[in-house]
Amino acid sequence: MADIIRDATPLDVSGMLGLMRELAEYEKLTHLFVATEASLRDALFGERPAAEALVAEQDGKIVGYALYFHNFSTFLSRRGLYLEDIYVKPALRGTGLGTALLRRVAAIAVERQCGRFEWSVLDWNQSAIDFYTKMGATVLPDWRIVRVTDDALSRLAGVA
Amino acid sequence: MADIIRDATPLDVSGMLGLMRELAEYEKLTHLFVATEASLRDALFGERPAAEALVAEQDGKIVGYALYFHNFSTFLSRRGLYLEDIYVKPALRGTGLGTALLRRVAAIAVERQCGRFEWSVLDWNQSAIDFYTKMGATVLPDWRIVRVTDDALSRLAGVA
Repeated sequence: MADIIRDATPLDVSGMLGLMRELAEYEKLTHLFVATEASLRDALFGERPAAEALVAEQDGKIVGYALYFHNFSTFLSRRGLYLEDIYVKPALRGTGLGTALLRRVAAIAVERQCGRFEWSVLDWNQSAIDFYTKMGATVLPDWRIVRVTDDALSRLAGVA
Repeated sequence: MADIIRDATPLDVSGMLGLMRELAEYEKLTHLFVATEASLRDALFGERPAAEALVAEQDGKIVGYALYFHNFSTFLSRRGLYLEDIYVKPALRGTGLGTALLRRVAAIAVERQCGRFEWSVLDWNQSAIDFYTKMGATVLPDWRIVRVTDDALSRLAGVA
């Protein structure tokens, strides 16, 4: 089997979208999933890309992906790299594809002189936590993510 | 007293850096603080800005700021807005400046059709949690931030 980790191209959008749906199911977040091929193509390859992606290809099929963008640390006064998604098809877990994707994104962070490489994990996803910890990452115990969406966002903005 | 919330300009960099140091002290993170006027100026106003900022001005002095950038949600397939920092001088807490900054950033998120407005909070910072919750935000209980820096990042990238 020939495994390849490479930058995503517009031809990969359909395959990536299928994997994104699988990830949403795994994370029990399908109610939030509204991405389409057009929206994903625009986000990755439009005039003003919002994110970048790598894909893992095996025998000509897209079997995993990593999607990332730059964040910024005030204290470091430097860009960081934030991994929004990393996913490998369940049947191929443990074959090194996830490790290869994570290492490649880390290499991009180093190349671009990012001060930090960060992502998020669900606290019940112990297999992911174990994998990340084994790879040298630290799960920050004390930070929580705060979110405002939809009507609450409109109210906060004073437009509702 | 004339309070003004406005976009930061290069002339605000020195004042903002002073507030950032105060914030690092409050968060007990001064050991991570390496920002300088030059690095902050480049990050906000250089050729390829990594973040944007608002300042709160009172009687001609910078007394608060908010720093933000765009993130991206795969499931929504849309940009979000991430608030990296929000800070108001302790002596001026409770005067509405923090609320005004947060509302203004939320309004920018709505204007730019962001799917989400997010930030992070330390789980021991109850006064901040209470403030955000009152403003309609949700503290996500189950997500944790994962981070790799320095030597661990180099090792993960395979360059150490």
